[in-house]
Amino acid sequence: MTSRLDLARLSLNQITIDQCSLSEAIEACGRAGLTVIGPWRHKVAEVGVEEAARQIREAGLRVSSLCRGGFFPAADAAARRAADADNRRAVEEAAILGTDVLVLVCGPPIGRDLEGARAQILAGIERLVPHAEQHAVRLAIEPLHPMMISERSAIVTLGEATDLAERFDAPRVGVVIDAYHVWWDPRLYEEIARAGRRILGYHVADWLVPTTDRLQGRGMMGAGAIDLKRIRAAVEEAGYDGPIEVEVINREAWDRPGDDVVAEACEAFLASA
Amino acid sequence: MTSRLDLARLSLNQITIDQCSLSEAIEACGRAGLTVIGPWRHKVAEVGVEEAARQIREAGLRVSSLCRGGFFPAADAAARRAADADNRRAVEEAAILGTDVLVLVCGPPIGRDLEGARAQILAGIERLVPHAEQHAVRLAIEPLHPMMISERSAIVTLGEATDLAERFDAPRVGVVIDAYHVWWDPRLYEEIARAGRRILGYHVADWLVPTTDRLQGRGMMGAGAIDLKRIRAAVEEAGYDGPIEVEVINREAWDRPGDDVVAEACEAFLASA
Repeated sequence: MTSRLDLARLSLNQITIDQCSLSEAIEACGRAGLTVIGPWRHKVAEVGVEEAARQIREAGLRVSSLCRGGFFPAADAAARRAADADNRRAVEEAAILGTDVLVLVCGPPIGRDLEGARAQILAGIERLVPHAEQHAVRLAIEPLHPMMISERSAIVTLGEATDLAERFDAPRVGVVIDAYHVWWDPRLYEEIARAGRRILGYHVADWLVPTTDRLQGRGMMGAGAIDLKRIRAAVEEAGYDGPIEVEVINREAWDRPGDDVVAEACEAFLASA
Repeated sequence: MTSRLDLARLSLNQITIDQCSLSEAIEACGRAGLTVIGPWRHKVAEVGVEEAARQIREAGLRVSSLCRGGFFPAADAAARRAADADNRRAVEEAAILGTDVLVLVCGPPIGRDLEGARAQILAGIERLVPHAEQHAVRLAIEPLHPMMISERSAIVTLGEATDLAERFDAPRVGVVIDAYHVWWDPRLYEEIARAGRRILGYHVADWLVPTTDRLQGRGMMGAGAIDLKRIRAAVEEAGYDGPIEVEVINREAWDRPGDDVVAEACEAFLASA
């Protein structure tokens, strides 16, 4: 049903080892035999984007995506201008880092205005697309689990993310599917098929039972309730054959040596993703 | 946009004051001027269903619904038979308590088999419907927030609940809409309209920011991020004009005097529901 995985498909999403600096993460990738990384902007900022790009390139790594732009809903015009400027910088950083995928975490509603937040998100993406096109960077809307709506994203289903993406030319705006965020959805498989060539990335982690931390309580693949092999099969059937990012945001893992977490991620990826 | 609320519409869902016995909850309703209650089975069981029905009747209260039947997914045939028997008893208890609405919390998946769980839920409702019909009790499927999927319910969207309900004759199976469970859904308003006359109950609580307890961290109406007035308007526009249950499952509220929580619920209901 699914293709056989090898470590060449694995991209280490950097937040999985947030305890490490970018250079430490790069070295951990090298020791584990990984060739793809998904950096986060707060780590890139610590060394500067040009230096980050140099370190990644010299280590022989590729960048699957940059995390993240977004956070479009703004309380006033000044906040909106600041978000726009930051998103333009995110596009530029993606290009410098050598990836054509910028992940968009779209941001929570302001107060109770959920519909307004969704309208602001569409408008924000519209303003960003020309800049992204100019830098040959594609915008990848990531729907987040509905339990994160008030901290992270008013976009909470794959269907909604695809609806948004379809407002734009296909090469410019797509979606990222993270199994952790979408596995509960009764419409999941039809929505994966519909997303099709709009799928610009696929992320994996597992849903622990119980989930003791709503934002930073993800499990390694195989440790939880998600039928990851079935979801990957659907994502591949829809046409996606790119890197698979391991994005296990787990507060407890951040207290352990990065190399141990990476080794565990590789093993879980091969066995259960 | 919305009708004016008065306390005659308020049903006190008993879990809001889980620190109280049924008789204490009945007395608290009386002191607060409430006339409708939504009992839970574990409280009813403490005194026995006949005695519970007598106490409620003699206090002049009506019962909006009984919470809850469901938990259909079972690991084996013996567990399935036990769940079926318990659900038949729940139907009988609803009838004895004088309500024609039994809320179904459908139960979590076993292991990773989410599709199998959903199939078991449909099959379980099919087995229960004749017994419910015989007792003139309607089954009300309650979709729960996707963050509760592994503890409470594989049914996580209103659309999915309505799809299930539509497998049956309209008078027999419907849905309960709880604003707390569904407010995040980008398809919410179209699904409320589609549910229409299948809506057998409406519950309110608010989404606190941050939400510090995934299962027992709900807020009083007005304390959080949900546009409750808009959702109520949609529910009423769809044709529902019955009781509105205040179901604020909050662990901290259980440490306070029941009367204080009920007074706060009444105030929040009139101001913000």
